[in-house]
Amino acid sequence: MVVELKKEVSIEKARELAEATQSILVENEILKLVTFSKIKELPAALETYTENFAVTPNDLQLASRIYKQDTISVKIGNDIELGGEKNNTLMMTGPCSVESEEQIETVSKFLVKNNIKVLRAGCYKPRTSPYSFQGMGLEGLQLLAKMREKYGLKVITEVRDYSHIEEVIEYSDVVQVGAKAMYDQGILRRCGKANKPVLIKRGFGSTLQEFAQAAEFVLSGGNENVILCERGIRTFEFNTRFTLDLCGVAWLKEKTNLPIVLDPSHALGARYGIADLSRACVAMGIDGLLIETHPDPSIAKSDAAQQLDFKMFEEMNASLKAVANAVGRVMI
Amino acid sequence: MVVELKKEVSIEKARELAEATQSILVENEILKLVTFSKIKELPAALETYTENFAVTPNDLQLASRIYKQDTISVKIGNDIELGGEKNNTLMMTGPCSVESEEQIETVSKFLVKNNIKVLRAGCYKPRTSPYSFQGMGLEGLQLLAKMREKYGLKVITEVRDYSHIEEVIEYSDVVQVGAKAMYDQGILRRCGKANKPVLIKRGFGSTLQEFAQAAEFVLSGGNENVILCERGIRTFEFNTRFTLDLCGVAWLKEKTNLPIVLDPSHALGARYGIADLSRACVAMGIDGLLIETHPDPSIAKSDAAQQLDFKMFEEMNASLKAVANAVGRVMI
Amino acid sequence: MVVELKKEVSIEKARELAEATQSILVENEILKLVTFSKIKELPAALETYTENFAVTPNDLQLASRIYKQDTISVKIGNDIELGGEKNNTLMMTGPCSVESEEQIETVSKFLVKNNIKVLRAGCYKPRTSPYSFQGMGLEGLQLLAKMREKYGLKVITEVRDYSHIEEVIEYSDVVQVGAKAMYDQGILRRCGKANKPVLIKRGFGSTLQEFAQAAEFVLSGGNENVILCERGIRTFEFNTRFTLDLCGVAWLKEKTNLPIVLDPSHALGARYGIADLSRACVAMGIDGLLIETHPDPSIAKSDAAQQLDFKMFEEMNASLKAVANAVGRVMI
Amino acid sequence: MVVELKKEVSIEKARELAEATQSILVENEILKLVTFSKIKELPAALETYTENFAVTPNDLQLASRIYKQDTISVKIGNDIELGGEKNNTLMMTGPCSVESEEQIETVSKFLVKNNIKVLRAGCYKPRTSPYSFQGMGLEGLQLLAKMREKYGLKVITEVRDYSHIEEVIEYSDVVQVGAKAMYDQGILRRCGKANKPVLIKRGFGSTLQEFAQAAEFVLSGGNENVILCERGIRTFEFNTRFTLDLCGVAWLKEKTNLPIVLDPSHALGARYGIADLSRACVAMGIDGLLIETHPDPSIAKSDAAQQLDFKMFEEMNASLKAVANAVGRVMI
Repeated sequence: MVVELKKEVSIEKARELAEATQSILVENEILKLVTFSKIKELPAALETYTENFAVTPNDLQLASRIYKQDTISVKIGNDIELGGEKNNTLMMTGPCSVESEEQIETVSKFLVKNNIKVLRAGCYKPRTSPYSFQGMGLEGLQLLAKMREKYGLKVITEVRDYSHIEEVIEYSDVVQVGAKAMYDQGILRRCGKANKPVLIKRGFGSTLQEFAQAAEFVLSGGNENVILCERGIRTFEFNTRFTLDLCGVAWLKEKTNLPIVLDPSHALGARYGIADLSRACVAMGIDGLLIETHPDPSIAKSDAAQQLDFKMFEEMNASLKAVANAVGRVMI
Repeated sequence: MVVELKKEVSIEKARELAEATQSILVENEILKLVTFSKIKELPAALETYTENFAVTPNDLQLASRIYKQDTISVKIGNDIELGGEKNNTLMMTGPCSVESEEQIETVSKFLVKNNIKVLRAGCYKPRTSPYSFQGMGLEGLQLLAKMREKYGLKVITEVRDYSHIEEVIEYSDVVQVGAKAMYDQGILRRCGKANKPVLIKRGFGSTLQEFAQAAEFVLSGGNENVILCERGIRTFEFNTRFTLDLCGVAWLKEKTNLPIVLDPSHALGARYGIADLSRACVAMGIDGLLIETHPDPSIAKSDAAQQLDFKMFEEMNASLKAVANAVGRVMI
Repeated sequence: MVVELKKEVSIEKARELAEATQSILVENEILKLVTFSKIKELPAALETYTENFAVTPNDLQLASRIYKQDTISVKIGNDIELGGEKNNTLMMTGPCSVESEEQIETVSKFLVKNNIKVLRAGCYKPRTSPYSFQGMGLEGLQLLAKMREKYGLKVITEVRDYSHIEEVIEYSDVVQVGAKAMYDQGILRRCGKANKPVLIKRGFGSTLQEFAQAAEFVLSGGNENVILCERGIRTFEFNTRFTLDLCGVAWLKEKTNLPIVLDPSHALGARYGIADLSRACVAMGIDGLLIETHPDPSIAKSDAAQQLDFKMFEEMNASLKAVANAVGRVMI
Repeated sequence: MVVELKKEVSIEKARELAEATQSILVENEILKLVTFSKIKELPAALETYTENFAVTPNDLQLASRIYKQDTISVKIGNDIELGGEKNNTLMMTGPCSVESEEQIETVSKFLVKNNIKVLRAGCYKPRTSPYSFQGMGLEGLQLLAKMREKYGLKVITEVRDYSHIEEVIEYSDVVQVGAKAMYDQGILRRCGKANKPVLIKRGFGSTLQEFAQAAEFVLSGGNENVILCERGIRTFEFNTRFTLDLCGVAWLKEKTNLPIVLDPSHALGARYGIADLSRACVAMGIDGLLIETHPDPSIAKSDAAQQLDFKMFEEMNASLKAVANAVGRVMI
């Protein structure tokens, strides 16, 4: 159950009520208590202090449309808005990894030329082997910050594990919680106290319910700016790298109030179908796309097979606007 | 390897060559031999008789773009064409099961009103329990034939197992091989000798390679009119009934020369996201859709949760034209 | 609900009651009616005629321990018994396919030497490509019958599709319904009227519930001799061919009253771990094993990688007796 | 490629060689270099300094039987040994979570009574919701340490995320890297520098290759005491919580040189089949078992359904010795 407290309730009183009801106190502009989901009736102790409350069937609570019907609005900087009353579909693109200043600058210029506002690139790569390229780390983050300064881009980059969470929060405009870190409470709880939007990628072995509940860790920490990103799940089919779960996206749209972004590059793991899949994603009426683009994919240090080159990206990007319009949305 | 024989080669000679090379003789207008896929060089015995040949990397042979680059054209009756040089996306709709004459006639009139040309409905239901509704069988097929006569519709209906294959071939315009029968060689080989187009649904536990190879059983029997239908695979996610595999569709489009149809109704298993998913499917640039629609889903004898009512269908259908146009296709 | 009718109820009366209650009449020694599983109270119309009844939570009915607590006894010929009060674990072995008289005779002699009573070998192979070895068909069945005659072995062989069901029923001692045919109602219903035991393999994409319900098609047809066989399910892990589901076996043992056989050969798809897996299976307290053994696996026409040679088989077989004894069972 | 350097090579020289060959230097008693796995011939720069080397086909390197044929020996304290030349199968048991001093002391006494040497219990629970019991944290660790002191038990407990890694290393005898943290490089790299054995649980969505490579992060950090634990993977089957992958265990035994432990409790997620599954695991010839046991499972704060009570545990435990003996092993 989510309980919104009356405006006049003090933070001290709220803490007291939280303890009395074994609830989590969410310290947003409006103070909220979230109880165990098995509690289906407003506790007597809260009655005097409650403005509104919503009973949720399970631990999908703050992110549930039962609590808040409308999709929340998430702002990246001052001028980019996802969800809310906008019908924006945001393009975020860039290479799998920051590899050098020259590489990331080439990409940045390409984004500016194509009027793309958000640069994606990894610095801490969640590789499955210690013997392959691990990313540029802090140096990569600093290069991304330089590009932001120089080209007015916003930056989204991944936190791989808790050991470098502070750096990623400091240098990014959107903190990306990687698929392999989706269950990481250290990261999620820290993001709940950060003043940056957080994009959570669905673990490839994670159920939709678990995915939505990962957002609850951030939301219940007080950070209301959470975006969900579906990027393919692991199935028996191995002719494609993963299986993009658009049925799952339909479920997320139906059940949660969070903006939804899709990452077809990691799902397919191959260039050939990215354009088709991206058009399908946009036709779902989603809030954004993450696409891997590289100046020369053949020499990329990671994910070489799935990154688009600039020409392929531009061709695809042009077609997305028409699809977006057909479903009442605008590509930004 | 697929070997197209010269026009002057007689059928007798072709049979002789097939035996000599342990190949399968395909008796189309152009006689073809298909060898084991491990054969990578034209057998000496065939040299004199060969017009063209294509070396394939595996047992995806007649359906492979390596053999035939362009998507084949499949005709349903005289006036409906999928694939080929058309950019048609065909709507096929109707109830999960034929339940009564009244029910199927109500649906038929609805199709006529909406200018839909193909009626789908099951007569032999592949239920997983002997204790639930099993379909109307032959009586259902006869009702479908009556609707074809009366309303000028084409009919697609499913063969569940080999015991009633002859009836389905006789009464349908398109023979649908159900997902649970995808490996059924009795059915596939019989369809290879039928003069009706065949739509094969992917088994929900079947790889893309196996799916494409199921088509080879029909194609190698001499029936060139095969359509592939993706309808969702079984994954760990059970908040949705199945997982529609659009990465797989991208692979099929890249590797095979067969028209592709999508069935989002069975994939999601719930009404709420069918419209979004159908728009996504159309944006993939596919050749057709199979959608379950029922006059009153609440009383349907099977698949009640996922069938659209007429109003939902009409709203969705209107939006599909815009998406189709955005990707250079026409809904028919 | 399963309703056992009183002994004095005539078959005609039973048919009448079945129709009146929309039940399926099972014509065993004891006449039974099986109703829709949603019926939780004995219909008034049946009260006078009912000896016993059991309410089942879902369509697992005749095979449910709720209906019959004890594992049923299945006899193969006169002297082999699975389930019931025996603690037998039956070894069934032989090559993937019958390839020639010489091959199958070599295997038969090997079985006799090792005191193995049941020969397994396929004649109709459910290959996924029309361009690979399809099995010897009827000729293979006749060779198996010859071995039975000559060496006193029992024979288990697979029906691939309904088109050759009669031949398989005629020539085998146990009819094996293959994993790819698990949903085939044509086959299952025909087996329900056969006087041979039926071993049903779990489809590799099939849930445990669906698997158990496949048995209901046979049982409700009147054939009480059904064995379940787990042979690996399809998962994301592809370093092994399939994933043997022993958690599923635990479930089947808990919920169903049918003997359970395991096939580790098809699950792993490689020789190296078959002995370890077989020991694990026997330690589960199961009723039988199906193991692929070939005189020379390197030249096998199908499943070459997973068949044991005679030496490997003998080493493994010796170790199984000790494990069986450790869990209170006897290898036969 | 793994290169063992000659004894006379100094650490400084070794570092120099590592840099020159872009290798990772492993600072064990014998200095080793691990190169990219694509390197298949000994680099010229290393020739003079190399004692032995092994070429590995992929990034399974230090853990591969190609590098070291025999299973490594891992010691827990002074008197417990897994792997090596012992044929021990180690029982580790205890509750899902430490819930109170009384509870954990009751369990500890039960272990002593049953001659069990290793106590398992969680303090940082990787729950999927922030609104359920999260574990006792540091207080729990301190209780475990108290039990060690008082009852001479060894303690294995889970690190959930990097934020409390130091505490877990300090208080445990074996550091358990949980399934949800299997990809966590922060944790794995820190464990590589710890002087405690590390048990890595396979992620339920992780391939065997990725699982084995997680061990490489620890091994390449210099910690040679790594144990692999299979605990069930996520599949389409949801009548059981997960699917215990014994085919995968066969693969791990064939390919890796690390001791293997199995956790059937988390795989099945229900009490009824744990005894059968545990016997199957022991029959596989594995090195240890992790079993959840609770004084009163009905009031457990987490995983209530799958924990055994003391009576069930004792019955099962007795039967394991016989199975272990049947496969030439000893339960300790």
